[in-house]
Amino acid sequence: MIDYSAILNRYRPDEQELQKLKSISEYLTTRASEICRHKNIRADPVLVGSYAKGTNLKDGDLDLFIAFDRDYEEKIMEKLGLSIGHDLLPNGKEKYAEHPYVSGEIDGIKIDVVPCFKMEFGQKKISAVDRTLLHTRYVNEKLDGASKDQVRLLKVFMKSVGVYGAEARTYGFSGYLCELLIIRYGNFENVLRLFSTTRGRLKIDDDERFEDPMVLIDPVDPDRNVASAVSLESLSRMRIASKMFLDNPSESFFDLERKPIKPKYHDRGTCIRIYSIEKPDLTDDVLYPQIYKFKLALLRLMEEYNMEPVGSAIDVADRIYVLIETRKFISDSIRIHVGPPADTSNSIDFIKKWLTRERSRGPYLVGNRLYVDTVEERKTPEEIVLSNISKYSIGKNLDKLKNTIKVQKFEEIKGRIRVLDRFFSEEAFGGLNSLSA
Amino acid sequence: MIDYSAILNRYRPDEQELQKLKSISEYLTTRASEICRHKNIRADPVLVGSYAKGTNLKDGDLDLFIAFDRDYEEKIMEKLGLSIGHDLLPNGKEKYAEHPYVSGEIDGIKIDVVPCFKMEFGQKKISAVDRTLLHTRYVNEKLDGASKDQVRLLKVFMKSVGVYGAEARTYGFSGYLCELLIIRYGNFENVLRLFSTTRGRLKIDDDERFEDPMVLIDPVDPDRNVASAVSLESLSRMRIASKMFLDNPSESFFDLERKPIKPKYHDRGTCIRIYSIEKPDLTDDVLYPQIYKFKLALLRLMEEYNMEPVGSAIDVADRIYVLIETRKFISDSIRIHVGPPADTSNSIDFIKKWLTRERSRGPYLVGNRLYVDTVEERKTPEEIVLSNISKYSIGKNLDKLKNTIKVQKFEEIKGRIRVLDRFFSEEAFGGLNSLSA
Repeated sequence: MIDYSAILNRYRPDEQELQKLKSISEYLTTRASEICRHKNIRADPVLVGSYAKGTNLKDGDLDLFIAFDRDYEEKIMEKLGLSIGHDLLPNGKEKYAEHPYVSGEIDGIKIDVVPCFKMEFGQKKISAVDRTLLHTRYVNEKLDGASKDQVRLLKVFMKSVGVYGAEARTYGFSGYLCELLIIRYGNFENVLRLFSTTRGRLKIDDDERFEDPMVLIDPVDPDRNVASAVSLESLSRMRIASKMFLDNPSESFFDLERKPIKPKYHDRGTCIRIYSIEKPDLTDDVLYPQIYKFKLALLRLMEEYNMEPVGSAIDVADRIYVLIETRKFISDSIRIHVGPPADTSNSIDFIKKWLTRERSRGPYLVGNRLYVDTVEERKTPEEIVLSNISKYSIGKNLDKLKNTIKVQKFEEIKGRIRVLDRFFSEEAFGGLNSLSA
Repeated sequence: MIDYSAILNRYRPDEQELQKLKSISEYLTTRASEICRHKNIRADPVLVGSYAKGTNLKDGDLDLFIAFDRDYEEKIMEKLGLSIGHDLLPNGKEKYAEHPYVSGEIDGIKIDVVPCFKMEFGQKKISAVDRTLLHTRYVNEKLDGASKDQVRLLKVFMKSVGVYGAEARTYGFSGYLCELLIIRYGNFENVLRLFSTTRGRLKIDDDERFEDPMVLIDPVDPDRNVASAVSLESLSRMRIASKMFLDNPSESFFDLERKPIKPKYHDRGTCIRIYSIEKPDLTDDVLYPQIYKFKLALLRLMEEYNMEPVGSAIDVADRIYVLIETRKFISDSIRIHVGPPADTSNSIDFIKKWLTRERSRGPYLVGNRLYVDTVEERKTPEEIVLSNISKYSIGKNLDKLKNTIKVQKFEEIKGRIRVLDRFFSEEAFGGLNSLSA
């Protein structure tokens, strides 16, 4: 039997932390309101996030929205928002998401002060801020204290499995989605049974407008799929983890301090290259889509040159690291040029053209089609990347940093680096495989 | 302008040869009838082939059928047939096709004496022998001397292009098909225009029963497609050659003494292995399908091991040679084991199974599916072939000779060998490319 109360004691904020969060959040909203009144700014501070809903985990952070009237010019709104943020968080730093915001801390609590508009005029759709407020109210209405603890268990489980968070870094389950799942299915284990027994797309609500792997309609906004960020892989990972836990329950599924396993680096007989690029100072939601684009561009190049890519991994540390593994260490010598079918009028043109050119073999027929072989210069994967990456867009910010790309060869790396740890420990979900062994 | 009469003078049998063929064929039929009468054998000698139709080329051979009544037991028929053959051709040797037959020569003319049955009792279908007789009569009725010369031009052209002959060695155009084409289209150049202007399947007769690349219904047997042996590749080759000739007519297209080109052997950066196997004493029609099976088995093995086959060639000399070219010199190190989808009940079994086994990486997820990588022993193409060819059938006769398979590496070969000549000169049709250059 799993001792859920012990797990909750470990990851639920204690009385002292809750007191601290309460006083800080009261200070933030009061102070922000004062500033607005004082400076005649038509904006309201709104505390959002899991603390406001009572489903927060230990050592959580606070999110304060500064919701501006929609008639402000965007530049003005951003400027005022930042000034409020700096006032509230004297040690805060500016970051950039949809709008710039200030991130800092008070008394060890991480705080984001995020300016935004109150309403999208001309749109019937509910605004993001209004919706967030409604979420907070809805969750507080529907969940009692015990159920909020079930949400916490689900969040811890998902964190440990690596699927918690809707942001681009994870494409997993948001906190609000966890809350709605507990509201629907009553408790943590019921939610796991849902994941372990269903097949195909997980359509908790059957709404044909949404084609995402998982669909759960927002009770406060029927036009929105709360699970839209959940990738097929996150859903599958959660399903596997749920099956494994129910098959053989273990408290290790709730151990967030689990040490990352140190896999054995070994020669797979493959060509492993690690491409790193300078890391721009951006939030994950802006950065990660560009990292995925970078990885995709590298994989496409490897496909284009028939290098047979078989593995990849990414890591964000001092720089952005993308590992690409290919079966081949060097590109093909022979290129097979596909010509027209024999029974077309340009078949003769193809033959005439090639008879005056250097070639290794042909024009020859296979079935009804003409081909010519030429011998090509052979290239290493890194030569392919460095001479071709300019053709691919890898995102607004990374595009400007292509000249900072460096290449490391696996066989020349001494010591451990995290992207290799990730690559070699790649399992159905981080390190949990070993639990069932 | 092409001097067709010069070409005909070169390849049409001269008066002296025709006289010789006439006297030999008269001798053969008379003598065979005598033997049958003398020994009370109920069989008739029938002269068939291009000589009987007056469309023969210079230095042709003679085919004599000995057509037995159907009530003979097969073994008896074969024995009697061979004895007649040996009587007619004292220097003859026994060969084997559908039945054994005797092949020899008289006065420099190659002669086959082939026993067969007169009728297929119980079948409404016309027998092969009857049909052959009808062909001879039909062609002689429809073609005058000038048209027969047009047939000869077409045959020479097709020989030079490498598509003449319906047998398994070529899968091309039979002599009878050439005759029917001239009967339909009047002359050689019209036939070439047919090939150069048509696209897709060449349905000279639109008969849905036949799905062959080319369809021409036998005027003496409406259930038979005379072009059934023509492969897509032979059809395409003939089309290309026709286009090239009409585009730029040249007498080289009629040069059967053209020296085979001696291509430059060169390093294509690929792995070229030549597998040879003992050559059993069989006719081409029995042997070639088995050689194609052998080649196909080798190519399949290369595909199975992801060796990336890119070229092949065959040659029959002292042994049977099959050349296989692959991009890779050694098989892959990493094998990717495809597991079940994550959302199935056996996903957990797959994970549990693999957690107790040696593996390089995984079980890991890609999309909704589980995978495991293992490191495999790497094999050369020849190791793959020698340890796996037993799994494949390569034909009744070659199956028994698998233990005679030898392997040669391209890089170790000194001097020229014909299968390499073929491989490196592989062009849309043997050596004719250079004509248009």
